[in-house]
Amino acid sequence: MPQQPANPEPVPDFDSMLSRKFGKEVANYFSGSPLNRVGFLRGDHQFLTQALKHPSTDFLLCNELQPLVKTEAKDRLAWVKFDDVKGVVGEDPYKSTEGEMLGLYNSTTYVPQMIFLGIDEKAQDALSYQGKNMYKGAPRFAVDVTPRASAKAECEKLISSLQGRKLEFAKGRVMDVVASDGTSAPTNEAPLTDPTVSPSSLARTGNPSATPLTSLQAAIYAEARQLLDWNARNPFCAQCGQPTLSVNGGFKRTCPPKDLARINSKSSTGVSNALSNVAEANQDESSRPPCATRQGVSNLCFPRTDPTVIMAVVNHAGDRILLGRQKRWPPYWYSTLAGFAEPAESIEEAVRREVYEEAGIYVGRVVIHSTQPWPYPANLMIGAVGQANPDGETVDLGNDPELEVAKWFTFDEVREALRVGTSGLGEDAGAEYKEGGLRLPPSTAIANQLMTSVVNGFVSGQPKM
Amino acid sequence: MPQQPANPEPVPDFDSMLSRKFGKEVANYFSGSPLNRVGFLRGDHQFLTQALKHPSTDFLLCNELQPLVKTEAKDRLAWVKFDDVKGVVGEDPYKSTEGEMLGLYNSTTYVPQMIFLGIDEKAQDALSYQGKNMYKGAPRFAVDVTPRASAKAECEKLISSLQGRKLEFAKGRVMDVVASDGTSAPTNEAPLTDPTVSPSSLARTGNPSATPLTSLQAAIYAEARQLLDWNARNPFCAQCGQPTLSVNGGFKRTCPPKDLARINSKSSTGVSNALSNVAEANQDESSRPPCATRQGVSNLCFPRTDPTVIMAVVNHAGDRILLGRQKRWPPYWYSTLAGFAEPAESIEEAVRREVYEEAGIYVGRVVIHSTQPWPYPANLMIGAVGQANPDGETVDLGNDPELEVAKWFTFDEVREALRVGTSGLGEDAGAEYKEGGLRLPPSTAIANQLMTSVVNGFVSGQPKM
Repeated sequence: MPQQPANPEPVPDFDSMLSRKFGKEVANYFSGSPLNRVGFLRGDHQFLTQALKHPSTDFLLCNELQPLVKTEAKDRLAWVKFDDVKGVVGEDPYKSTEGEMLGLYNSTTYVPQMIFLGIDEKAQDALSYQGKNMYKGAPRFAVDVTPRASAKAECEKLISSLQGRKLEFAKGRVMDVVASDGTSAPTNEAPLTDPTVSPSSLARTGNPSATPLTSLQAAIYAEARQLLDWNARNPFCAQCGQPTLSVNGGFKRTCPPKDLARINSKSSTGVSNALSNVAEANQDESSRPPCATRQGVSNLCFPRTDPTVIMAVVNHAGDRILLGRQKRWPPYWYSTLAGFAEPAESIEEAVRREVYEEAGIYVGRVVIHSTQPWPYPANLMIGAVGQANPDGETVDLGNDPELEVAKWFTFDEVREALRVGTSGLGEDAGAEYKEGGLRLPPSTAIANQLMTSVVNGFVSGQPKM
Repeated sequence: MPQQPANPEPVPDFDSMLSRKFGKEVANYFSGSPLNRVGFLRGDHQFLTQALKHPSTDFLLCNELQPLVKTEAKDRLAWVKFDDVKGVVGEDPYKSTEGEMLGLYNSTTYVPQMIFLGIDEKAQDALSYQGKNMYKGAPRFAVDVTPRASAKAECEKLISSLQGRKLEFAKGRVMDVVASDGTSAPTNEAPLTDPTVSPSSLARTGNPSATPLTSLQAAIYAEARQLLDWNARNPFCAQCGQPTLSVNGGFKRTCPPKDLARINSKSSTGVSNALSNVAEANQDESSRPPCATRQGVSNLCFPRTDPTVIMAVVNHAGDRILLGRQKRWPPYWYSTLAGFAEPAESIEEAVRREVYEEAGIYVGRVVIHSTQPWPYPANLMIGAVGQANPDGETVDLGNDPELEVAKWFTFDEVREALRVGTSGLGEDAGAEYKEGGLRLPPSTAIANQLMTSVVNGFVSGQPKM
């Protein structure tokens, strides 16, 4: 039996009918994790305790969301052992059940964030755990070792010892290279209100040698980063404003009914707004005001992922692609249009809306091509190919003027640029590139994959993906 | 020029190459809104003020998220005019700019939630507005008239007057019919931790006569419901715990730097948790503690949509579909498997993970079929077809035992059930259905659309979607 969910990209090809009909699946950068997440074990603290301390277990450390890498081989994640992190996370962080943890909750206690990432089923001498089935694999965790609050000293001590072992935290995005001006690339998130830049179009790996993380490592780091970031940026309940507790291996935040910090604390008066009608519970000094997320299930307790559309739009004749550029991009550098999906619209509708808003083009049929997780901070890029209607091909930048230019390029122009003109935003184009020619994002960007599929026959001919 | 973004389903078919190659696009229930959202005008209060008071403008009212409908024709949304709602929303709610509103923010003031839904460009005698382009259409708003806080009396007065006009608020889900036991269907959200039930599989419209809202109305209501719900369930900032202000036509919540309610208020001590290091600003009694969402752009300020996978899994031979059922469903009733996408995985990976977790099946190639917005509360259903690997077709319910049964059905069995056995969960199957035969969800469910495509040749033959 192949260990399919734990399978690295490329997707195993058993020559299925779907493969023959639709072509090979495109596995984008940041997808293709080699781990089986075994998410159903996240609430099992007996499993997590065994997993934490097994000799096969490895820990990915992050400092301000940047992963630990080898100083002399920055293209590789560095993993450490439980002995390294136990000063930070404690000897037995999963000794209480989730229910017990709720009863012991104290909002003034800082707990360094830990994420259970999954198990590597291909590892040797791995943990065997008998749950409802038997699971065998080497556990993988991520730990936030940013020096802060009560963990400051222990984190600093650990970081210092890592430096002695020639390990350091990466700078910039994991697929960044040093920018052409010698500075490292900015780590800011792509602005959410700037839908014309696909975050993917900011990928900076033009060729394999410029990729600090392999795609397998990038997929693991993406999981770690997105979960650590979500926990760090959501310490309060959006429903009631009270501090929350991370549970379920870091995949859930719950609003505890009690908080030991409230005992003899002025802060127990709680929060309020125009809708609050907060009656203090009488039975226990530690009781907090009621919160709707404690009844039933609320999506607010679960990690957030923002669906984003990115699309190669083809003209009706089927021989040109619509590309756009922002003023701040390098000369001649273009990419596909992109933007966030809005509430209550299908992806197909979001594609048509975004292309209309940004370029005034009216798109008919939309086909979804492939998807890409993008952990800056929490995007799911949904790549599509759309075809313009014959009477809707005139560019109009007047609605939502995010783009400096949007224009149609012939398949031949795009094909040539894919061959000689791809690079990250901060990189030089390749040696064959001639000044004035079209420049495009690198192959790690889904924008590149979409264009590659289109010029290779996605729309009209046989799929050659 | 066709008014494409404002176009109703079905998608206009200009016989594009994509249509010829991939077949006609499937437009699922809740998609296909007839409105152009003109999202770039949401921050323009001059536009919103004109839009609010134009004679062509209509308002969709919701009470506890249920839409106003005609008592004697419950299959139709009821729209009202500005004169009806001005007692609730005020004469001039957009008179201040967003910047001015931030300066005037008082968290103890209740403002009934209003959403700018878009413009209907096909309406007669519509508003013309000269922005960067000229926009012409009849504006549409949604207003929360749930009697609460300082708006209680005005809302009750309005609701009472509506009853006199034979208008009332719908009960149950908009596509619900009265359940077979005579009770109305439950309105609870599908549990997020129950990934085996696609929310879509709960759709209850087996035939057109049982559909209270047309698909165009359902798409408008979906936008209204998801935005009203998001605003109502996110009154506090998840980053800092302080109350937030709805702006941008209801599409953004911002964390104001000041709150007039803090002046002479005990509540100005603010919120805290283990990470707080809140220094009170000195320059102004109304100043609030700093919040990271005020620098740059934070996704926490924007509406949340949860990507969900739902998939028709075909066996490797290409003649059977994997379906599952939950214990609480009616006898013989099955649907496709479904579940929430997790952070940092592609949709293709999420499909493989969910099918492995729920049924022990190992899926290879995955193709995305179509998508469906699902506003209970904020799902984006991403429908896919996957094909099992030849050595991974044995059902195993042991990993995450959400399903009572998962099994393979022949295309012929599914084809027959699509003909005679579809209905909502609470409905009787049709007249031709014979006890013991397979029962399936109705055509408003994307699960039904996926199965229909598969048995009509999506995997192996020519697409006949």
